[in-house]
Amino acid sequence: MPGNGYGKEQCMSIAEISLERLQPEAFIRDQVAAIRAAVGSDVAISALSGGVDSAVVTLIGHRALGDQLKTYFIDNGLMREGEPEQIARWFAELDVPVEIVDARDAFFAALKGVTDPEEKREKGITQVFYKDVVGDLVRTSGAKVLLQGTIFTDVEETSAGVKRQHNVFEQIGIDPQKEFGYRVVEPLLQLRKPGVRVVGKALGLPEAIWSRPPFPGPALAARVIGEATPERIALVRKATVVVEEELAGCGAFQYLAVLHEDRVTGLRDGRRDFGHQVEVRCWDSQDAVTATPTELDFGLLRRIADRITSEVPGVVSVTYNITSKPSSCIEAV
Amino acid sequence: MPGNGYGKEQCMSIAEISLERLQPEAFIRDQVAAIRAAVGSDVAISALSGGVDSAVVTLIGHRALGDQLKTYFIDNGLMREGEPEQIARWFAELDVPVEIVDARDAFFAALKGVTDPEEKREKGITQVFYKDVVGDLVRTSGAKVLLQGTIFTDVEETSAGVKRQHNVFEQIGIDPQKEFGYRVVEPLLQLRKPGVRVVGKALGLPEAIWSRPPFPGPALAARVIGEATPERIALVRKATVVVEEELAGCGAFQYLAVLHEDRVTGLRDGRRDFGHQVEVRCWDSQDAVTATPTELDFGLLRRIADRITSEVPGVVSVTYNITSKPSSCIEAV
Repeated sequence: MPGNGYGKEQCMSIAEISLERLQPEAFIRDQVAAIRAAVGSDVAISALSGGVDSAVVTLIGHRALGDQLKTYFIDNGLMREGEPEQIARWFAELDVPVEIVDARDAFFAALKGVTDPEEKREKGITQVFYKDVVGDLVRTSGAKVLLQGTIFTDVEETSAGVKRQHNVFEQIGIDPQKEFGYRVVEPLLQLRKPGVRVVGKALGLPEAIWSRPPFPGPALAARVIGEATPERIALVRKATVVVEEELAGCGAFQYLAVLHEDRVTGLRDGRRDFGHQVEVRCWDSQDAVTATPTELDFGLLRRIADRITSEVPGVVSVTYNITSKPSSCIEAV
Repeated sequence: MPGNGYGKEQCMSIAEISLERLQPEAFIRDQVAAIRAAVGSDVAISALSGGVDSAVVTLIGHRALGDQLKTYFIDNGLMREGEPEQIARWFAELDVPVEIVDARDAFFAALKGVTDPEEKREKGITQVFYKDVVGDLVRTSGAKVLLQGTIFTDVEETSAGVKRQHNVFEQIGIDPQKEFGYRVVEPLLQLRKPGVRVVGKALGLPEAIWSRPPFPGPALAARVIGEATPERIALVRKATVVVEEELAGCGAFQYLAVLHEDRVTGLRDGRRDFGHQVEVRCWDSQDAVTATPTELDFGLLRRIADRITSEVPGVVSVTYNITSKPSSCIEAV
């Protein structure tokens, strides 16, 4: 039964459903039943992140629970340009009401001075999101359950020690009931990203959602090396607009912009300008476990660099990542 | 007359000799005469850096002065793999005796804790090189003159405020006679890099020298963002070996590896490894004033990344710079 607790030993015994074996209609039916059984007559909440995983979970949850499900979009200040409005519009069209929660101050306060990547994920995101913000929503809504879009790869990477995924608790010894005051139900635990997309399509999500490239839990905080201040998030948000516009439809698994902390020597109006560097990453991958850099047209790369250096204030240099995962990871943070 | 002083106003009135107008034999003859006139019966010294400029100046100086010229290779600890031995071998074949001076401790002591690029160029390199090390050589050899490979682009960039070139004094108001105790003669002031190569070929330098990609005055200290410790120089030196091996003969103007200070999340043996990132730059350019990134074969880029992540300890991620100059510069520091 999904989401009803998996300990450190059990986590790797979750039965993955491969893309070949996945029957989306049956999967949705099973998960609807499982959610109903887990939630009963309680209220559950779901938090959209803008990614496909949380969108799919919300739609399955809505099908299972109707009005018993409260759906939120938590604006942590780390989202992409226009994201809150876009998400609300998409879900309004699906007749799923979404409440936007402005939690920007709480997140930036928690991220202040934090530069270590794991600490950023842990303190800045996990603690504020699950304890403070979702904790508050749970208390005010009377919810007992949080529906969450954890997928197989998240569990695998966290338990292998690769990276702390923000949404994986139990195999690292956190009991959300005790720690945060609610239970967590995770309907997508047996799927990897391509399976989630198939289910999203079967649910009637618009293609703009189910085909979205993955976006990390810590959002743009994962796209800034060093401290994620509002100013630095604003810079990487502008670079993200360029990268997503230019690479939409390129067929890659995921593409992103990273704002470096390093400064490099550049030139502006004929004078030295000790400026920012942005790194572009674009990955070919099936499931994010391994990945290779996409062989993009060189003219396209040049155009991306030209746009970023002209549209993002203070950026003088743009690079393209040419490493495989491993030894790189998909995200820099 | 070259090298006899140019003030801030005069510096941009140096008469450039374009590649089209350059007559290498006549240029060499003129500079031999000018050096003889400037040095007279004194002793002059020349310091090879491994680059084409200082090699050409040394050979012109040798032709002008014979035994009156003392040639040194100052091992500042920031040189490429095997550089001191390579340089000594090349010049032995040209019958120019070269003395290798071990100044590694002096340079690393001066670079300790220095992270600002301009301070690195100024304190770490200019002061130690010109005042301490060359100053000592001048005193012990009794030399009155330093022959130096400053070229037109160096003057242009420094006086435009783009970048402090280590070898440009007078237009920034430094009198080397007063400051360091010797006069500076600069036979290549009227040339840009392609002109220097033509003169080098006419002098009978081996192609391996006159066709060498430019290498910066601060050497590998310019290839490390942040503090240039012996350990970090050793890492970028290894990355430089890979880049120079893979890109030799690619026809680009210049190619280089930069060790970032930023750490990024990577994967080693299935575990998270918060590691180093190396940036590769490869430029198409005529004269370094403007430049565009070279469109390298993607398989070659991938091979460079694979080699750097396996041959340079702790490097998990490699990028390729896709910006033009401007807004980028050729070097990151």
